Amino acid sequence: MNSLEIKKLIQMISKLPGLGPRSGKRVALHLLKKKEQVLLPFIDSLKEVAVKITTCQKCFNFDTSDPCSICTNPKRDHEILCVVENVEDLWALERSNVFRGIYHVLGGVLSAIDGFGPAQLTIKQLEDKISLGGITEVILALNPTLDGQTTMFYLMDILKKYPLKITTLAQGIPLGGELDYLDDGTLTTAFVGRKAV
Amino acid sequence: MNSLEIKKLIQMISKLPGLGPRSGKRVALHLLKKKEQVLLPFIDSLKEVAVKITTCQKCFNFDTSDPCSICTNPKRDHEILCVVENVEDLWALERSNVFRGIYHVLGGVLSAIDGFGPAQLTIKQLEDKISLGGITEVILALNPTLDGQTTMFYLMDILKKYPLKITTLAQGIPLGGELDYLDDGTLTTAFVGRKAV
Repeated sequence: MNSLEIKKLIQMISKLPGLGPRSGKRVALHLLKKKEQVLLPFIDSLKEVAVKITTCQKCFNFDTSDPCSICTNPKRDHEILCVVENVEDLWALERSNVFRGIYHVLGGVLSAIDGFGPAQLTIKQLEDKISLGGITEVILALNPTLDGQTTMFYLMDILKKYPLKITTLAQGIPLGGELDYLDDGTLTTAFVGRKAV
Repeated sequence: MNSLEIKKLIQMISKLPGLGPRSGKRVALHLLKKKEQVLLPFIDSLKEVAVKITTCQKCFNFDTSDPCSICTNPKRDHEILCVVENVEDLWALERSNVFRGIYHVLGGVLSAIDGFGPAQLTIKQLEDKISLGGITEVILALNPTLDGQTTMFYLMDILKKYPLKITTLAQGIPLGGELDYLDDGTLTTAFVGRKAV
């Protein structure tokens, strides 16, 4: 007996990542019950993001300006370029404050199953950027998944014709990790890559 | 390095029921990545609901009209009133198609911990509705939780001065339930309430 408008909203919320029909209904009812305190401010916030946030056409990060505040920041090292899969990964690196160079967001990884080929990613734009010169090091900060590693090798193959230092993130035991709980792959990698102290 | 607008949106999404900071970020990025296909239609749907959906002042259901389509439906039995905790429960009963009377949504249950007293619920409006006459049966379809049962006894105490048939939902083994997996309370209730076949 719930009206069409509510049904449509529940359907939309249910399709958001991590949500389903039950949680979608719960969120929709929460919004309806708290119209003034939650629903209206939520609409305003979504509208603000829809209007103000744009994709930086240099690095493909989300920001209020294009080029974004990272690409235009003169204090950052524009000679080191870090290639990441998604904006999530860019945010994670920014949060850790470890990197002061610039980024390039691929927009995913090569994946036969998901139908992601080189044309779906920003690989051409990456090559264009590098061919302009000025970049001395490219860090391939892709996730150590099968697709991530495939993409990394693909990129290494493309980039080898440029006079660049190409690096990847170190693999090994994560901080706070316990040997007993680690997978064999990580353990093997950490063992093979052991360092003198 | 993500902008204020995105941070605010993530914060809002994180506060929705069933979501947290990580899933909030995931949903926000999903919306940003699919601006045309998801974000803009989502805003439209939310706006539509915010504008069109209202609370029925007779039964406190959500609908496009006040009084709602259930309260104004002449085909429904206006002599039988079903009291439910929330709109969720009303929807569940409507889905099962078992009830053809009218509803009254309490808006919660009495709960000392959550600070829900009789004034926070629509108990006064329920009594007003019943005192007008015309209702012959009140079904107290509250959840079999501690707070739900407390509220039920409170309502029974209020309603006993009216010439009404007061009923509650049958308790026992749910359809498809297995004795081995049922809690002792349900099993005891089902055993005590056993019926001749």
